[in-house]
Amino acid sequence: MAIAIPQGFRFAGVHCGIKQDAARPDLSLVMTTVPAVAAGVYTQNLVYAAPVAVDRRRTPSSNIRVVVTNSGNANACTGTRGERDALEMARLAAAACGAAPEQALVMSTGIIGHFLPLDKIAAGIQAAAARLGSDEAAFLDAAQAITTTDKSHKVASRTLPVAGRTVSLAGMAKGAGMIGPNMATLLAMVMTDAALTPDAAQTALRAAADDSFNCISVEGHTSTNDTLLLLATGAAGGQPLTGADVNVFTDALRAMCIELARQIPDDGEGATHLVTIDVRGCATRLDARQIARSIADSALVKTAIAGGDPNWGRIVSAAGYAGVPFDPQRLSLTVNGTVLFQDGAPVPFDARGVSRSIREHRETQLELQLGEGDAAIRFWTSDLTVDYVRFNADYHT
Amino acid sequence: MAIAIPQGFRFAGVHCGIKQDAARPDLSLVMTTVPAVAAGVYTQNLVYAAPVAVDRRRTPSSNIRVVVTNSGNANACTGTRGERDALEMARLAAAACGAAPEQALVMSTGIIGHFLPLDKIAAGIQAAAARLGSDEAAFLDAAQAITTTDKSHKVASRTLPVAGRTVSLAGMAKGAGMIGPNMATLLAMVMTDAALTPDAAQTALRAAADDSFNCISVEGHTSTNDTLLLLATGAAGGQPLTGADVNVFTDALRAMCIELARQIPDDGEGATHLVTIDVRGCATRLDARQIARSIADSALVKTAIAGGDPNWGRIVSAAGYAGVPFDPQRLSLTVNGTVLFQDGAPVPFDARGVSRSIREHRETQLELQLGEGDAAIRFWTSDLTVDYVRFNADYHT
Repeated sequence: MAIAIPQGFRFAGVHCGIKQDAARPDLSLVMTTVPAVAAGVYTQNLVYAAPVAVDRRRTPSSNIRVVVTNSGNANACTGTRGERDALEMARLAAAACGAAPEQALVMSTGIIGHFLPLDKIAAGIQAAAARLGSDEAAFLDAAQAITTTDKSHKVASRTLPVAGRTVSLAGMAKGAGMIGPNMATLLAMVMTDAALTPDAAQTALRAAADDSFNCISVEGHTSTNDTLLLLATGAAGGQPLTGADVNVFTDALRAMCIELARQIPDDGEGATHLVTIDVRGCATRLDARQIARSIADSALVKTAIAGGDPNWGRIVSAAGYAGVPFDPQRLSLTVNGTVLFQDGAPVPFDARGVSRSIREHRETQLELQLGEGDAAIRFWTSDLTVDYVRFNADYHT
Repeated sequence: MAIAIPQGFRFAGVHCGIKQDAARPDLSLVMTTVPAVAAGVYTQNLVYAAPVAVDRRRTPSSNIRVVVTNSGNANACTGTRGERDALEMARLAAAACGAAPEQALVMSTGIIGHFLPLDKIAAGIQAAAARLGSDEAAFLDAAQAITTTDKSHKVASRTLPVAGRTVSLAGMAKGAGMIGPNMATLLAMVMTDAALTPDAAQTALRAAADDSFNCISVEGHTSTNDTLLLLATGAAGGQPLTGADVNVFTDALRAMCIELARQIPDDGEGATHLVTIDVRGCATRLDARQIARSIADSALVKTAIAGGDPNWGRIVSAAGYAGVPFDPQRLSLTVNGTVLFQDGAPVPFDARGVSRSIREHRETQLELQLGEGDAAIRFWTSDLTVDYVRFNADYHT
């Protein structure tokens, strides 16, 4: 895949020694050639990490020059020293890029409750700054360096015409476990050369997150570090977008964020299926989200899909305890295009055929139809396998 | 264990052919020798089974003579025919015991979405009615016949003096999967020869459920069939209990329900640990419950305990996304008596020692202390193992 790198960005990813394996990069630097507009969406967890505290204060902004990210250590539950460390990490990155301390944002992901090895990070920032590049290889280095248990980097991009100019969008994300959809999930950064005001950037990012990173789950555990950042250099030229042009941009941003977010449950720890859950006919979008999430987080639904079992009883009963009022007599369920349950009652269906369609495809489609209104949501989750349990029981702090 | 069988009850459990294995009983009959006071607490799932619909209408009551229960088929998601079948099953049981149709309650547990085999159930009720007994063996036959994936029957009993008389309490429960704590969880029946008014019985049962069956979880999936029934014959003599005597009775009922309820996550599918979660120092008991439940249902917490890992980061972050406002700087955590996290920050501890204490004991104790008030809750869950996933992925509808 060729990545459309937006203008005005430079990237690097290096190994600085936070991760033991020298082959695995653990420090990522993204700098902008001009002060960029920046927006952020963060975890809703009350127990949030030090870098989240720093970035929350600094976004939205029209004056960001660099984002530094480390993997292997989350700098979470590290108290006031953790926050001093996050500020120092940001300051080091700013200095290496010739920027002022407050022009830097910082992200961390990895183990909770350990202090950052600032000496290694300082050396890593120097090494990364010396290798900054604007080509696809440099972009992928940066994308790789933010990953932890991910099988590979997660990237997406597109170009589109807006307001008479060609604008590029590119994004990177990481995440495979501790994924719960109550915020922007885990680490992701989207970059554009479109010209945006900070307010437009923040509004567009929140709208995009609402349909993408807030609609995924692996096991429903909301992380302490979830951060989604948008950087906009304006290097494509022109005045900041307004009106319908912002909508065109937001639609592209949303589509790209969905492409990125889907990769997270698809790479869910131990996952053998990416499950798409469409919940339709709800009174409100919040109702649809709660029902989708209840299904997405049910261990019984997820193990059934892992086992290739079209177990509609587990799915409709998970909808039933979502805390959303609805009439069960108007509930219908379709799995991979086959109706299993209609108007509150099971219907005869080819169980072997549906089971085969689940087993033979990586993607499974669940569609619930309620009779309560017009609101809908699309949600993604992974299945639950023996390998997820093995991985997370064997992992030791 | 000797079971204190309350006066005025007769029991039977037989195999009638709902389960394929002829060695596994699947029909249970509990009759009373006099019209009994009956109370019930039921699933909060909107998708609830036909027997739940029947029993809800019939409790509280002062005129119940028989409870018939089948395992192997939940009679859930079976529409109007399912409700007709549940009424017919109740009628058959009442007739076999010389009672009127409306004097019967009915419970079902097992597979969702299949109609009851009424012919087998009719024959089973006849066979059970011919074998009714009031001894411990008959009680255990009835307790065994309500089980499904349980490793064994779950029973508890006690005797106590109330209002100058000796009163007995005995209970039976079933459940190992699809256990979510938002109601009385799965099937349980508690019996007493105390004299109670229907109102006192209902109030006592709800209070007991709130501290027992509503405080357990296996994977947090609220079932369609959860039912907890209390039958009181008054055969111990005297007038219905009032005032402080009701409190004495309720305390004993609560303690017995806790003893029964704990057995469910202890027998959770694939479980190798029973985890007790004490959440203290909350503003309200509901807050404490939400935090406890968030921890109890976290796959990451549960896999960590299965792996013997004192992973406090997963526990405090699960508290952080429970939706309850609190100051993380006043949060503390103790695991098996060792403080791991105090006032919002990790403290040095003997990680190997705590890991060993988890691995070497079936029970793990988590204690969270918040600084928000005086409300507390005790909650129980199971760990999450490869065997849970295997069991539920291999199970086919």
